[in-house]
Amino acid sequence: MEEATSPVDLSSIRQAQQRISGFARPTPIISSRYLSHLAGSPVYLKVEALQRTGSFKVRGAANKLALLSEAERRRGVIAASAGNHGQGVAVVADGMDVSCTVIMPKGASVAKVQATRGYHAEVVLHEEPLSHARTLAKEKGLSFIHPFDDPAVIAGQGTIGLEIIEKLPDIEQVIVPVGGGGLAAGIAVAVKSLRPQARIIGVQAAAAPAIARSFRDGRPLVVPPHPTIADGVAVAAPGEVTFPLLRQYLDDIVVISEDVIAQAIALLLERAKLVVEGAGALGVAALVDGQIPAAKGPTVIVISGGNIDIPLLARTAEHGLVHAGRYLSLNIGLADRPGQLAHLLAIIAATEANVLEVQHHRLGERLPIGRVRATLLLEVRDTQHSHEVSSALEGAGYARVPLEEPPGQRQFVPRSWLQGDEDETEGAGLR
Amino acid sequence: MEEATSPVDLSSIRQAQQRISGFARPTPIISSRYLSHLAGSPVYLKVEALQRTGSFKVRGAANKLALLSEAERRRGVIAASAGNHGQGVAVVADGMDVSCTVIMPKGASVAKVQATRGYHAEVVLHEEPLSHARTLAKEKGLSFIHPFDDPAVIAGQGTIGLEIIEKLPDIEQVIVPVGGGGLAAGIAVAVKSLRPQARIIGVQAAAAPAIARSFRDGRPLVVPPHPTIADGVAVAAPGEVTFPLLRQYLDDIVVISEDVIAQAIALLLERAKLVVEGAGALGVAALVDGQIPAAKGPTVIVISGGNIDIPLLARTAEHGLVHAGRYLSLNIGLADRPGQLAHLLAIIAATEANVLEVQHHRLGERLPIGRVRATLLLEVRDTQHSHEVSSALEGAGYARVPLEEPPGQRQFVPRSWLQGDEDETEGAGLR
Repeated sequence: MEEATSPVDLSSIRQAQQRISGFARPTPIISSRYLSHLAGSPVYLKVEALQRTGSFKVRGAANKLALLSEAERRRGVIAASAGNHGQGVAVVADGMDVSCTVIMPKGASVAKVQATRGYHAEVVLHEEPLSHARTLAKEKGLSFIHPFDDPAVIAGQGTIGLEIIEKLPDIEQVIVPVGGGGLAAGIAVAVKSLRPQARIIGVQAAAAPAIARSFRDGRPLVVPPHPTIADGVAVAAPGEVTFPLLRQYLDDIVVISEDVIAQAIALLLERAKLVVEGAGALGVAALVDGQIPAAKGPTVIVISGGNIDIPLLARTAEHGLVHAGRYLSLNIGLADRPGQLAHLLAIIAATEANVLEVQHHRLGERLPIGRVRATLLLEVRDTQHSHEVSSALEGAGYARVPLEEPPGQRQFVPRSWLQGDEDETEGAGLR
Repeated sequence: MEEATSPVDLSSIRQAQQRISGFARPTPIISSRYLSHLAGSPVYLKVEALQRTGSFKVRGAANKLALLSEAERRRGVIAASAGNHGQGVAVVADGMDVSCTVIMPKGASVAKVQATRGYHAEVVLHEEPLSHARTLAKEKGLSFIHPFDDPAVIAGQGTIGLEIIEKLPDIEQVIVPVGGGGLAAGIAVAVKSLRPQARIIGVQAAAAPAIARSFRDGRPLVVPPHPTIADGVAVAAPGEVTFPLLRQYLDDIVVISEDVIAQAIALLLERAKLVVEGAGALGVAALVDGQIPAAKGPTVIVISGGNIDIPLLARTAEHGLVHAGRYLSLNIGLADRPGQLAHLLAIIAATEANVLEVQHHRLGERLPIGRVRATLLLEVRDTQHSHEVSSALEGAGYARVPLEEPPGQRQFVPRSWLQGDEDETEGAGLR
């Protein structure tokens, strides 16, 4: 082949669409009134969280496995993955009657291990999944299935682009999460081949910005990722196959902070009724963050997956609602006397904020005897309503203590405590 | 009209489908590998949680408002609703340029009030929403839109049945939540008219069983509902229009306990990536509970809505996973000495259970000095794995205290505490 030949093109993606049809399903494209209002133009979600196994990975895996030789399939396949890629390879291998081994990191969640075993893969937990998978592949003659840096895998993910164009031929821009870049490269090749004027914007977590920096610098950089809620896109360096494709076909790659990713997860739960993992929420986070160019025509945001453990989802969504100004967390000092908490709750009730949770700490680490602390989680309408709650507390004798205050959290003590007044019969709540 | 004429028939539902097309959208029908495996036959979800406003109610509201006279629409409409019905009426009225008032109960969640106001409805909070709405309707000449007991509303909900038959013409059974009965009656009329051999099974919360009891008794009974997570179906008596339809077209109505509804909500979050409210999860709960007859052909479960507040969703899903045996909650007494908690965590780590949360209570209400208590939430593979964790604790000197133990929860103290041995140097964790 000549150097100029692209490893992935429209024809290889169209062939992939035929090959994967028995393994992956076309996913819904759903309009969002709320996001359209936010963007000022029509916004649609391409929901790969509703794909089999809960992520797009099954598409690339199906195309890759279909392209293996009969002999390779008889020997079996192996993949290294903390989550989605392993499930994608496992379900396809199961459907093709190919034996499958998935190496997962020690400490992987029980839910993800069980899901992968549910597709009849042999799961091995190992400290170094990638190198162990490559070693086993050599030893046992298994085909190693790369999560992104393989033209067959990229072409499989590109079938999402064909489904977008089919439903929305006048698409103006596509927003897509970028990890190793297989998803973004595949979609970009498909969409730009059929509609060159469409913009393709990649989104990465600020905590794992290797590809975004490489993209801007024009050369592959190694940037070790920090921990991120978007763990599905945390890679240290772009792929050899994907990077030139991203450089050629993407218009921009933007990066997003953890708080905004949490806010997007909460928004998708509440407004779109969808469970979306951190990586999957990146596109919506970019819109919420004001990082998507204004459009007139349709924007499609690719929701790449929904595999997030329920306790993490619960905590993240609540954090996201606090960050969005929808919840207010109050940390309030009280004198340790009967009726103090009831009085406090009456002040809050008068503001029409909803009390969701109350924790009453009788003995805290830095609380002197005779003082207790209440932590309250309130549902408020908006930031203005939060201010009304603060004013009501200040009007009732509480002083705001501006210490270590992340957005959406407030700390209060009776004003008398600040004045060194240890006789609290005149303190807050007894006036 | 003759008495024998049904207030809702296939033709009125087909007309409704034309009328509502600009206001409600056809929703996805998604196959579920997990639920099919559970049922032993193909199971599909008809996802009205992905309908506009997050529930099916917009269908009935659109058909009803389209059938009002020009003069009625000029005067405006009014509805009483804690949630879905109000949003459905509001969004349709907004689209038809009809003024809309929604009376909501005092204490309605801020999220639901804000969502309804977001569709430009005037929201009034009142202690008695229904009677206040009827009073205002009379005073101001507004059209009162009933949530279910109206042939136009029922025909609108019936359009879901047409979409099911179109996608799955060989449908064998449809499982549908029953509250006032508008949804179930509409779907049943549509499906039975086109495929008389299909079974239609209604599902109610055991805490609000008015319709199920009336159905079995053959006459309308008043049964005041208890509080239930499926608040969307909590009615005290069947409707005058809906009850005869339910009697004629439904094959059975089953009832489901709160724990199983919570388990279904968790399962839908985790496996289907869908946010589903309590009422919406009833059909899946019936399947999980073994209350759906065996089938060979396709079963469709109607997911009626997804409007549930995020904190309630988070708590319910965690409760559901405990009930399903996927989490284990441990309450463990410890001597108040350094290293006790670390030792306990080491015992648990050896069982390969994942520790999700640790709470360490230094001072509990009924704990003597020198004793503390740890509450741990563990992720386990299954009930067998829970037993392994219990055995490991017992092997390390902890005694199980069988007090007030709901499923998925265990309480332990060092065995020495039970023996009245106050010198704990030989106690658990220091052997």
